[in-house]
Amino acid sequence: MTEKFTFTLHATDGMARRGTVSMPRGDIRTPAFMPVGTAGTVKAMYPGQVRELGSDIILGNTYHLMLRPGAERVAKLGGLHVFANWPHPILTDSGGFQVMSLAQLRKLDENGVTFQSHIDGRRYELTPERSIEIQGLLDSDIQMQLDECVALPSSEAEIERAMRLSLRWAERSKAAFGEQPGKAVFGIVQGGDVPRLRIASAEALRDMDFKGYSIGGLAVGEPQHVMLEILSITTPVLPAEKPRYLMGVGTPDDILESVARGVDMFDCVMPTRAGRHGLAFTRFGKVNLKNARHAEDHRPLDEASDCPASRDYSRAYLHHLFKANETLAAMLLTWNNLAYYQQLMAGIRGAIDERRFEDFRLATKAGWARGDIAPL
Amino acid sequence: MTEKFTFTLHATDGMARRGTVSMPRGDIRTPAFMPVGTAGTVKAMYPGQVRELGSDIILGNTYHLMLRPGAERVAKLGGLHVFANWPHPILTDSGGFQVMSLAQLRKLDENGVTFQSHIDGRRYELTPERSIEIQGLLDSDIQMQLDECVALPSSEAEIERAMRLSLRWAERSKAAFGEQPGKAVFGIVQGGDVPRLRIASAEALRDMDFKGYSIGGLAVGEPQHVMLEILSITTPVLPAEKPRYLMGVGTPDDILESVARGVDMFDCVMPTRAGRHGLAFTRFGKVNLKNARHAEDHRPLDEASDCPASRDYSRAYLHHLFKANETLAAMLLTWNNLAYYQQLMAGIRGAIDERRFEDFRLATKAGWARGDIAPL
Ligand SMILES: [Zn+2]
Ligand SMILES: [Zn+2]
Repeated sequence: MTEKFTFTLHATDGMARRGTVSMPRGDIRTPAFMPVGTAGTVKAMYPGQVRELGSDIILGNTYHLMLRPGAERVAKLGGLHVFANWPHPILTDSGGFQVMSLAQLRKLDENGVTFQSHIDGRRYELTPERSIEIQGLLDSDIQMQLDECVALPSSEAEIERAMRLSLRWAERSKAAFGEQPGKAVFGIVQGGDVPRLRIASAEALRDMDFKGYSIGGLAVGEPQHVMLEILSITTPVLPAEKPRYLMGVGTPDDILESVARGVDMFDCVMPTRAGRHGLAFTRFGKVNLKNARHAEDHRPLDEASDCPASRDYSRAYLHHLFKANETLAAMLLTWNNLAYYQQLMAGIRGAIDERRFEDFRLATKAGWARGDIAPL
Repeated sequence: MTEKFTFTLHATDGMARRGTVSMPRGDIRTPAFMPVGTAGTVKAMYPGQVRELGSDIILGNTYHLMLRPGAERVAKLGGLHVFANWPHPILTDSGGFQVMSLAQLRKLDENGVTFQSHIDGRRYELTPERSIEIQGLLDSDIQMQLDECVALPSSEAEIERAMRLSLRWAERSKAAFGEQPGKAVFGIVQGGDVPRLRIASAEALRDMDFKGYSIGGLAVGEPQHVMLEILSITTPVLPAEKPRYLMGVGTPDDILESVARGVDMFDCVMPTRAGRHGLAFTRFGKVNLKNARHAEDHRPLDEASDCPASRDYSRAYLHHLFKANETLAAMLLTWNNLAYYQQLMAGIRGAIDERRFEDFRLATKAGWARGDIAPL
């Protein structure tokens, strides 16, 4: 345990990095995948299970939590860690991204964004200062500056306007956060798919000396190769001694390729959301359990897995649970998917430690390419 | 382990009985509560959790399983124990009760009942022989005869007609079941709220020499005192050396009072269904977590419980999970409720063992009467 937020690099292999973020609430082994606990729960999982899978940190969504149950209420109840029965580190986003995707009657100006709740229509204002205040009320360990994220494709002028606004909000967020040695606020690199804007954003944020850097505005509609090219030109601008978090990414392949480009932290709803919809991630690619070909298949998803969800239940049973709309379907597939994601991260970390990341990358991709076992 | 179905009485206290049903798949400590796994899953629970709470046996619903995934398919997949990842004993109903409550276009005659599936409208026939065949395909350890259960109130003539038909079906079910030393089929006492019909039914079934006896057609609309009076006159007619199962019952109080009248086995959807709807069972009565009074209550449901669901999550968090429609809400409350039911059964068994059942009954009722802790 440490009293200060620190990041230690243990090993590098090409651009891939193996490190540890240390904070009073615990260590985060990087590269790390952070399961998404939108409304204070990683959907369909007990928090103890999420932990046992090797999750060092989970993510909470400021937008959802500020609307319900409300940041002040969470603070009164002892903060998000106590509330959600998760005593380990928590990262929160700023709320801005979900305001733009979920809220109604949004109005964005220099000061911030006003919107109506998608739940009950109540009016809210989110400024860089209020976002940091809310994240503080939640007692978040790693907080995000408020930023403006544009969907791709967008015009270069629009991308630049949002990036410049995000830089001004970065200053205000950092000032609002002040000195909190055990916690961190991250600045967020924006700039869409325009290399010169990405570089300008990363340089400006670097000069502000954040404890860590997020890369936002990717996986928002662009092809994967565009995202990877942007990463390749962005991470070299960021200071080596600070952690880098690629927001909202992604597929197992996105993660593998982004680690290869120097990213340390990831979050994505994919394993949890896909699990609720019948899609399983395995060493041998994706498996759609709703497909009729599994209806009489006695084999588990992966008999060699040490996750009970992957090993101890037949595909036929999982198929049945989805057909019958049973809660256990989402419980088992979410478990399987998070287990797979965390196994992938553990594999990545081990490979970087031993300087064999490229072999690991190729072997992992070969497994996905092999594909699922043939139908019975 | 035993190769034969046996029932051993260890102790009695008044009419309350403490025993063990032994079967090749395991022992059932009685009085026992059997969680309901309607479609091959105790809703919102992993099977390992259900077991850890002290469940020796679960119930499967023949009606649901014959429609989806189908009895022949379950057999092909190794039976219900393998399918549902529950290697311990399973009891199945005959399917008849749910045909009458869920299926469409039912037609009942001497031979059996024909109906249309409520899922896809397909036509099915259920006879005493086919019900036993299906239960065999499911590999059920304790099977039920097909019977006709009438709702209360009904006319005495209608109750008697259904009871006599059920007796003829009992004979046919027993013949269809044949000799299966490690398993059992139970006869079902019917006769509504008419003492002479209950006694006639119990006597006729006793003479057929079943390995165990169910009491059906109660908790179907009548007041509790009527159910308890019927039990008081029925259990003395049943042979002391055979287990007695009160079908579909009930509340914690129903269970306590029925044990006091000589019942050994229970099943009910109440703890699981109530859990999904925000109602928690505790030592101090029922708690509705949807109630706004819990919104800022940091206290758990029962800090002295050894069930994590009851002890490690605040009422405010549980309230939030229901408001936000989160799956974890049902997962935690179902867990709490089944934990409470199984703690109650363990308490009942310990009390009978030590011949202090009446004290236990009064103390338990005093706890419920005390009620939940006062709001903050
Ligand atoms: Zn994502
Ligand atoms: Zn019931």
